[in-house]
This record gives sequence, C-alpha cells and structure tokens, in this order.
Amino acid sequence: MTRFAFKIEYHGAPFSGWQRQLNEPSVQRAIEVALEKIVVGSHVVIVAGRTDSGVHALGQVAHCDLETTLSPHRLMAAMNYHLRPNPIAILDCAPVADDWHARFSAIERRYLYRILMRRSPATLSRGLVWQVRKRLDIVAMQKAAKYLVGYHDFTTFRSSTCQADSPLRTLDALHIEAVTGLAGDELHIHAKARSFLHKQVRSLVGTLERVGAGAWLPEDARTALEAHDRSACGPVSPPTGLYLAQVRYLADPFDMNNRGSE
Amino acid sequence: MTRFAFKIEYHGAPFSGWQRQLNEPSVQRAIEVALEKIVVGSHVVIVAGRTDSGVHALGQVAHCDLETTLSPHRLMAAMNYHLRPNPIAILDCAPVADDWHARFSAIERRYLYRILMRRSPATLSRGLVWQVRKRLDIVAMQKAAKYLVGYHDFTTFRSSTCQADSPLRTLDALHIEAVTGLAGDELHIHAKARSFLHKQVRSLVGTLERVGAGAWLPEDARTALEAHDRSACGPVSPPTGLYLAQVRYLADPFDMNNRGSE
Repeated sequence: MTRFAFKIEYHGAPFSGWQRQLNEPSVQRAIEVALEKIVVGSHVVIVAGRTDSGVHALGQVAHCDLETTLSPHRLMAAMNYHLRPNPIAILDCAPVADDWHARFSAIERRYLYRILMRRSPATLSRGLVWQVRKRLDIVAMQKAAKYLVGYHDFTTFRSSTCQADSPLRTLDALHIEAVTGLAGDELHIHAKARSFLHKQVRSLVGTLERVGAGAWLPEDARTALEAHDRSACGPVSPPTGLYLAQVRYLADPFDMNNRGSE
Repeated sequence: MTRFAFKIEYHGAPFSGWQRQLNEPSVQRAIEVALEKIVVGSHVVIVAGRTDSGVHALGQVAHCDLETTLSPHRLMAAMNYHLRPNPIAILDCAPVADDWHARFSAIERRYLYRILMRRSPATLSRGLVWQVRKRLDIVAMQKAAKYLVGYHDFTTFRSSTCQADSPLRTLDALHIEAVTGLAGDELHIHAKARSFLHKQVRSLVGTLERVGAGAWLPEDARTALEAHDRSACGPVSPPTGLYLAQVRYLADPFDMNNRGSE
C-alpha cells in the first residue's frame, strides 16, 4: 500500500463542493470514481481544504492509500483520463510517507479571490470572478485589510455553521492587487493563513468590498472584527470568485528533491 | 434614424460564429433579436470582422441604424439586459456619422491567440485556449514570425474557401509573448493588420506551433509562405484560442472626445 499525494485543479461550477454527498456531484466523488477504474476496490480521498459549492481550486492537495504498482506519472495520466469530462485535473502526483496527511500536515493555505470591476455583464470570465459594477477604492480596501491581518477572534468572519473548535486564527496576509485582465480591470485579493474558518475568506472579501465601494469606512472593518459577532459582517461574497490557490507543507511533496531515491 | 456603433465582447463557444444562419445560434442573430425588443422593426447589424464558429471577441465592433430617442448609455443597458443569458456583452455604444461603417471604415484589426502549455487537461481555461502538451520554443517561433510579417501573398495561410479577391495582405505585426496564467504558462500571439484573410490567424498560429514544437525549422515557415500553396500550411489551430481583440478606426468612435457636442 502506498500513500499518494495529488495536486488538483478544478472548476467549481458543476460541483456541490469538494465533499462527497448523496445524489450531488462532488469533486471528491469524481476523483474516487476515477480511482476505482484504475485500482480495484473503493477508495477514500482525504483533502487539505474542503471547498464549498462553486469554489475553484488551482492547487488543492489530497491524499489516498492505493495498492498499485503504477508509477506516479502513470497513475496521474490514468486519473486525468478517467476524470474526463469533469473539469478536474490532476496536476501532480507523488508518493509520500504513510503518516503524511494532506490536511493535518499542511502548514499554510493560500486563497485567491477575483473581483471583476465593470458595468457590462461578464462573458468570457463568467463564473470565474465576482463582478461588481463600480470601481472599488483599492487604497481604502488595503487600509481595512491591515486591521484584519494578525491573530484575532474571527467570529464575525466565519459561517454560523462553522464547526471549528475555536474562532481564533492568525491571518498571515490579506493583500489586494490591481490586475488588468483580458475582460477588464480586476482586483485580486490574496489571503494566507495556516488554516481558515468556514466561509472566512468570502466573509473578509465581502467586507472589503463594502469598504472599496465607500459604503463602509476602513475602520468599520476593525469595528466588525472586534464585535466578535457574525451579524457585524458584511455580505458574504459569492463562491465564483474564490480559488484555493496553494497548500504548503514543511517539505513540498511534489518537489522532486523531496522524493528521495525515486 | 441614428447610426450607432457598438463595441462587443463574446464567448464563442455557443455560437456557429458571428454571421446569422438559419437554425444555428449566431452572435449577429442574438444581437438583432435583442434590438428588436428595444426598437420596433427588424434590424441588420453590420460587423467589422466576421468571426468563425467558436472564436471569441474582446473588442468586436458593429453598427446598426436605429430609429430611437434612447441615449447610447440607455440603449447599451437595454441591449445587455435583453442579451442575457447569452455570453455577449455590449461594452460601449456611440452615435456615429451616417457614412461611418464598422467594416469599411476600419483601418486595423488586432487578434490575440492563446496557447496553454501543460500536460494536464485544462479545467478553468477550457474552451478559452488551445492546449498543447509540450513546451514550445518561443525563440524559434519569434524567428519564424519575422518571415511572415510584411506584404506578402498569403495563399498558403488562407482558407481554400476564402472569398477575398486577393491573397495579398500586409501583416503589420506577429509577436509572441510568454504569459504566466493562473492555470499555467501561456503563449499569447498578437497579430495586427489592416485586414486578414479567412482563417489567416489560425493558419499562421498552426504553423508557428509546428516551429515551436521543433517539428519545423523557423525557415520552413518562410518556405511555406513562398510556396503560395494552401497545402504547404501547417495544421490550422483550433478556434478556442482565438480572440478578435480590437478594431481600430481613424477616429475612435467610442472616445468621448470624438463625439462632438454629446
């Protein structure tokens, strides 16, 4: 039995999220079905970050124990073959130690949130961004973001159904970048933390948007944070703009140098 | 009666191309149907560049004569409303002179072609790029592109069904840019000319790809050009990577400064 780590990209639109659910298409189920066609038996794939319905991934990480003599490269090719036509791609695959864990070994998650600022309806980037009709004030948003970075009680910025034991988290970075896309000006919000609470990024982005639109002052983000009250949060931003960008480990399992004799 | 110019963005996938066809969804028909809901009567929209099935547009331009008192801004908003859920957006709208012509007044067309270089299947950019599985040699491609720029007989690089009177065209620019996309490394090929022949950009790109893949030498692109023979062309690249990026006029109809007293 070998434990394999996978780096995974997907388009969130057709799925009810990462997690397997009865009668709902999920990324997890699609990958497990593909694996069943390659390795006899049923398989359970463990993920670093369970994404919600509609949320995308550029670099999700998962692991699975498999009884196979296939090389990582052949396994990845077979998975990509059987995953079609799902918009899910295995970007990388590597054997890892038996006690390596996609979720518990992770030391950092990075999310990207894309906001498209324009009046006309999105066509080419539809479903890949959150479209807002007015230009947002990036300087005000950056000011608000500074209040939110650090070790805080993020009760305001987590879903009321969040199952984490504690609302305390350290938000290592929350920065906003202006990007010229093919279909208009975008803001890319980059969030970095060891771990996030449920709907934390979308809650933070929703509040930043209120600041950027001028409806809130930058200081109102601090007031909301300090309220420790879910009802003090701005509107939660839609899943279409959110991407799980990267999951980091002490040693990168996909770095050839960490694979020992392979 | 006022002649209006429109700047239009669309996702090419659902359409059989720009041009209205019986029993086939077309961008032209979708826009004319939207206009019929706003201004009484039937309308014919004239376009700068007829795009083929599956080809996208970032900045297509068209015009139409309309009996309306709506301001350009209101007309655009109404068109975008009635175009839903088609992935077509009116980005700009302006009144123009009665003898202004989207096609015949154009002095330059710019196309963008996106190639995604990676092994894993595309997910987020599926349908928006041409995916090739190997890295292409951009330096070799740039060398080949130099042979193709200029005033030439482009018989090799036009569709056998191209209806233009002459295969002579001046290709003003054909340059290749390396771009780091969210889903991997891309090459963006930028082509610029007063006008293009049918399938010219996709024929040029298909030949450049052969050079980038090492199957052709850069000089083979020159040999193909000088053959003046369609069968000397490399494979035509798929429509998914092609975007009509911009159409230029002596005076930009969408520049407020050119709208006189409006």
